[in-house]
Amino acid sequence: MLGVGLSRLGHGLLGPVRAYCAMASAGKGLIFRQLFEPVSCTYTYLLADEKTKEAVLIDPVLEKADRDARLIKDLGLKMIYAANTHCHADHITGTGVLKKLLPGSKSVISKDSGAKADIHIQAGDEIKFGNFALEARSTPGHTDGCLTYVLNDKSMAFTGDALLIRGCGRTDFQQGCPSKLYHSVHTQIFSLPSECLLYPAHDYTGQTVTTVEEEKKHNPRLTKSEAEFVNIMNNLNLKKPAQIDIAVPANLKCGIQD
Amino acid sequence: MLGVGLSRLGHGLLGPVRAYCAMASAGKGLIFRQLFEPVSCTYTYLLADEKTKEAVLIDPVLEKADRDARLIKDLGLKMIYAANTHCHADHITGTGVLKKLLPGSKSVISKDSGAKADIHIQAGDEIKFGNFALEARSTPGHTDGCLTYVLNDKSMAFTGDALLIRGCGRTDFQQGCPSKLYHSVHTQIFSLPSECLLYPAHDYTGQTVTTVEEEKKHNPRLTKSEAEFVNIMNNLNLKKPAQIDIAVPANLKCGIQD
Repeated sequence: MLGVGLSRLGHGLLGPVRAYCAMASAGKGLIFRQLFEPVSCTYTYLLADEKTKEAVLIDPVLEKADRDARLIKDLGLKMIYAANTHCHADHITGTGVLKKLLPGSKSVISKDSGAKADIHIQAGDEIKFGNFALEARSTPGHTDGCLTYVLNDKSMAFTGDALLIRGCGRTDFQQGCPSKLYHSVHTQIFSLPSECLLYPAHDYTGQTVTTVEEEKKHNPRLTKSEAEFVNIMNNLNLKKPAQIDIAVPANLKCGIQD
Repeated sequence: MLGVGLSRLGHGLLGPVRAYCAMASAGKGLIFRQLFEPVSCTYTYLLADEKTKEAVLIDPVLEKADRDARLIKDLGLKMIYAANTHCHADHITGTGVLKKLLPGSKSVISKDSGAKADIHIQAGDEIKFGNFALEARSTPGHTDGCLTYVLNDKSMAFTGDALLIRGCGRTDFQQGCPSKLYHSVHTQIFSLPSECLLYPAHDYTGQTVTTVEEEKKHNPRLTKSEAEFVNIMNNLNLKKPAQIDIAVPANLKCGIQD
């Protein structure tokens, strides 16, 4: 189940907390880019080791695959993994097209997502690229297969739709469950260092990043009690996502093109 | 002409080149946030000294003033300056409203912009906030009053509409002049360290940042000769900016409300 460059590692084996900046200054340069797709307001993240040039793309979007591939080529990088945080309902993943544009790369998703991919991972697995690694934490509640990817120095985490800036993902379709989501955020994300930068899969207000400390203080939903949170989430009365009927079936193939 | 916290400083007095990350790790924490407004695709930047809490907002947008003020309050910051890179033609600045929402702050723009503001600056001036400073470099060509703000360790620069990611600002209205813009970018921006992060006032493709090295290699316009660049810019045949007739008159007041 584990591909090249992926290894299972318990949380306890991760190194001490260091600031991202300190790590970068020590010559272990991390290339980092945040990219935006405006129709579904999705953020895609490019992470790469400056030395080895190995790169990972998190949550690419189909319509932006050409842009992403060009940037990766411009920077002289080699994309080895295109990893989704979960099986998205609001856009089609770019992994399938990117695998063709950038041969040699593999798609990654959680086993619990039920989606096809080259590599299935689960909580505690690591996605390695050069001298860096992303640890997968299981953060279900929006969907059963939601993962949060945590950089190995715990300076930044990619929360998918589990935690958004001053918000969180919906819990009213797929395997949504507000109680699960509440526990995921509190045990797996709020347990990260307070200064850890949190990068969500979406933002609808033009914000790009938050921190554990900020969300623990200011998230209007997740600072509430579990009962209040469940009540809020069960009464949002949101519209059905515009692209869900085409996005979910496409994403269940997760870049596996027949 | 110079307000509190602003001082004139020659370029030669700036310290040696250090990575942003190194500086941050040395305990001189810089809070940095990139914010987006989707109608005009404008980026607003929040920079603050983690210790003193003094903050500067670059290129705020009217429609996002509430969001920006809330974030500044959430982070416990005190906005002392709202600085525009130039007199924008595509959106109304948020400085006027932000000055009301966050009393005690002042609007800043270049003298050459012709716009009103609390403080007028010019090339070589610095905008100080806590232990940090933004050096103003004159980068005309899109407009006569365009400034590029360079963080004092030269790790990041805010290029306004002078240099965009793989592009540049228009030169076909206001005081646009392609030859001036070519010289501005080559002498004032491409002379920064190759790893210097460049943050533009706009991006229309969902990219957030670039570097001096990247644009020197991959900018499709500014890697050309000056003659070729002038020819490209004089033949873009772009539509008149949608908001220009309301934005420019409003921005000439630059937050000075009668």
